[in-house]
Amino acid sequence: MTEKFLKEKKFRSLVTGDDFTVPELVDLLNLASDIYREPNNFSNLCNGKVLGSLFFEPSTRTRLSFEAAMVRLGGSYINIPEPKGSSVMKGESLADTIRTVAAYADIIAMRHPLEGSAEVARQNSSVPFINAGDGGHQHPTQTLTDLLTIKETKHTLENLTIGLCGDLKFGRTVHSLVKTISKFPNNKFIFISPVELEIPEYIKMDLKKRNIEFVEVRNLEDIMDKLDILYMTRVQRERFFNEADYMRLKDTYILDNKKLENAKEDLIILHPLPRVNEIAVEVDKDPRAKYFEQVRFGMIVRMALILRLLEVR
Amino acid sequence: MTEKFLKEKKFRSLVTGDDFTVPELVDLLNLASDIYREPNNFSNLCNGKVLGSLFFEPSTRTRLSFEAAMVRLGGSYINIPEPKGSSVMKGESLADTIRTVAAYADIIAMRHPLEGSAEVARQNSSVPFINAGDGGHQHPTQTLTDLLTIKETKHTLENLTIGLCGDLKFGRTVHSLVKTISKFPNNKFIFISPVELEIPEYIKMDLKKRNIEFVEVRNLEDIMDKLDILYMTRVQRERFFNEADYMRLKDTYILDNKKLENAKEDLIILHPLPRVNEIAVEVDKDPRAKYFEQVRFGMIVRMALILRLLEVR
Amino acid sequence: MTEKFLKEKKFRSLVTGDDFTVPELVDLLNLASDIYREPNNFSNLCNGKVLGSLFFEPSTRTRLSFEAAMVRLGGSYINIPEPKGSSVMKGESLADTIRTVAAYADIIAMRHPLEGSAEVARQNSSVPFINAGDGGHQHPTQTLTDLLTIKETKHTLENLTIGLCGDLKFGRTVHSLVKTISKFPNNKFIFISPVELEIPEYIKMDLKKRNIEFVEVRNLEDIMDKLDILYMTRVQRERFFNEADYMRLKDTYILDNKKLENAKEDLIILHPLPRVNEIAVEVDKDPRAKYFEQVRFGMIVRMALILRLLEVR
Repeated sequence: MTEKFLKEKKFRSLVTGDDFTVPELVDLLNLASDIYREPNNFSNLCNGKVLGSLFFEPSTRTRLSFEAAMVRLGGSYINIPEPKGSSVMKGESLADTIRTVAAYADIIAMRHPLEGSAEVARQNSSVPFINAGDGGHQHPTQTLTDLLTIKETKHTLENLTIGLCGDLKFGRTVHSLVKTISKFPNNKFIFISPVELEIPEYIKMDLKKRNIEFVEVRNLEDIMDKLDILYMTRVQRERFFNEADYMRLKDTYILDNKKLENAKEDLIILHPLPRVNEIAVEVDKDPRAKYFEQVRFGMIVRMALILRLLEVR
Repeated sequence: MTEKFLKEKKFRSLVTGDDFTVPELVDLLNLASDIYREPNNFSNLCNGKVLGSLFFEPSTRTRLSFEAAMVRLGGSYINIPEPKGSSVMKGESLADTIRTVAAYADIIAMRHPLEGSAEVARQNSSVPFINAGDGGHQHPTQTLTDLLTIKETKHTLENLTIGLCGDLKFGRTVHSLVKTISKFPNNKFIFISPVELEIPEYIKMDLKKRNIEFVEVRNLEDIMDKLDILYMTRVQRERFFNEADYMRLKDTYILDNKKLENAKEDLIILHPLPRVNEIAVEVDKDPRAKYFEQVRFGMIVRMALILRLLEVR
Repeated sequence: MTEKFLKEKKFRSLVTGDDFTVPELVDLLNLASDIYREPNNFSNLCNGKVLGSLFFEPSTRTRLSFEAAMVRLGGSYINIPEPKGSSVMKGESLADTIRTVAAYADIIAMRHPLEGSAEVARQNSSVPFINAGDGGHQHPTQTLTDLLTIKETKHTLENLTIGLCGDLKFGRTVHSLVKTISKFPNNKFIFISPVELEIPEYIKMDLKKRNIEFVEVRNLEDIMDKLDILYMTRVQRERFFNEADYMRLKDTYILDNKKLENAKEDLIILHPLPRVNEIAVEVDKDPRAKYFEQVRFGMIVRMALILRLLEVR
């Protein structure tokens, strides 16, 4: 844990979606698929290993996913389950907190409200570090979750027409998914949002530069029949300038059975969850609804990630 | 986790005291007795299994009991230890939360403040579900705890004269215990309470209909010599209309050594805990005081329940 | 768990620094050194054992240290991670809470804000009990941490000149360290503090009585070249009568590279952490800075302590 050690450390961490190359991603997803099919082959690989699960912002869903991943590998976890009252934070720097937890744990997963905090943590950790979300910045394990779900339900990550619907302006999971899955060949994007919540210009510029096909539309139903994947997101009331706009627009971006009438038979519907009302409960019964399976794939891909970063497999 | 799967699921859950027949109860309690006598025989049976421990209402005692039960079987747990700040709840429905946790865990135990929430959870869980208390409604593992304690300390569940003392109106543990132990042959009940906190009419009607003997009395000492079991409960100040009534009545329902003078040698004294002052600390030294052993039996019977629901044993 | 059992119990607990004799301390530290060198030899010794980790006052650092220690021995933990909302405390006595947790766990570690609470807990626990801090009173595992760090980095606990710097009046870790390490032969103390925060009279009296050498100074730099160990502590603003005094004095007790110019090559710098600003971050790069290694030694010595109290080794 000396400064020298920290500089020379050779282990991997995951802070942004760019920390893995495409071949590395494919390799990680293949490992995840193996785990999905034969979980018992992996149930003792992390015996004696400890995950430091640090949630300085409430995100129970992600926390439980990481902790379940670790125990399903035979490991254990220690955690800071909620930000309040944590003495670790009593005037202490994040750097010191991470150095402390790295003395106890073999690998750390951290959610933190501040953008950039994950990079600070990585630099100060003497063990592999996973960014479980740093503010609006990055949430790379959500992207891994999405990729594994697509791989396992569409059986390919290529030649897909991917519709992303709802709040495309602020949704970091959307930005990260577009960025990553556009690295795989021949995927096309349809961005479905109100003008107020359009996908950011820099993402469109990047896609254009790389000659990746995309269109922007306002209406979900019009393009439903074209989609291989429909990725829904929350449209949060507080994103709108006024209540009238919100009320006028929100129903356009709520998925229900009627809007699915023209959809392909082998469409898959994804959502990073939690949902509020942007997917009607009636859709849950549709076999194309994959968002709860997506939750399980999230745990599975985190198992794969932990194995890779610990170099156990 | 499709809707179809949820409908066809064959596994057992425990939501109300009626979810097990008497032979099933006897079988479960026998398993618990085996665990009590030879815990080491059971310490690896849940290797690789994960309990989702969801406490949306603080109940540390019950939470720790479930979590200890799971780790003593060789399993692990993931938890929501307290209701505050839980992102799972951020506008999300209970159904969605349960579906999410069921993707991570092999079995779920949930405490929730709303009556009926346990049934909603059971319907949405793709894994066995245990109700760890839903509002004032049901708390079936407390009843299992009481039954195991009686079985192990009285060596029978039949032919017993059972005194229940204190708040018999609002105490769900009392209602549930009466309902369940009255299914075993030849038990009699003595209800000891102030008129304001009498056992509800519907319970008395039910006992009458089934020709089960009971009496209601106001005074604990008068009937002490008749009891095989004395089940004490808290008399909460806020249940009374006025302070004067509370002050006048509360001492009548406080157990101390003096009130025990005429009690049988083989009486057992139970309490669901936590106690405030309704059992004087001096009584703890009496060998008939079994309420701390009851705590341990609570963990043991939850071990048995987890094994049965997971069909491990 | 009867009263009789509680009186006759033979197992050990750790409430104050006096609970171990010097030979017992040496033995415990030797076990810790073995764990430090060959942790894999110890990774299954507590299989099936459960730690009750009870933190009624936030102290995430200490809590994680205990929980990591237990899982690194192959055991599990159940916990109360934060004081708020804990139903265990709903009007219940600490004695009852401890008796309850002792029914679930094989060993208990407790942090509590009230002085003397640890002794109450020990008396009511039917399993070995460890005081993880009771108010300003005792925090014996911090002292064990300090001793192991000194043993492993100085390779002796004797013939040392030990400087303690900062708030020596209120710092319980300082009091406890002085008391314990002064039992080893030929150690000398240099107390470095403002007059407002001098080491208490009773400690000086005790050292004088035992003919143990010490001096009190106001200035850290003046005596830097004499030190084998420099133990830094926080100087808390709220300890001063007025802001002017605080501002005038605080820099005197902040360690930076400049103040270290005359220090010995083999000095070690310790701090119980968390630090605020009393050690400049630049010092972290100095190989003599051992305070983050100290964190790891804290976990290791707790592993040794758990093994000894459980009589596993």
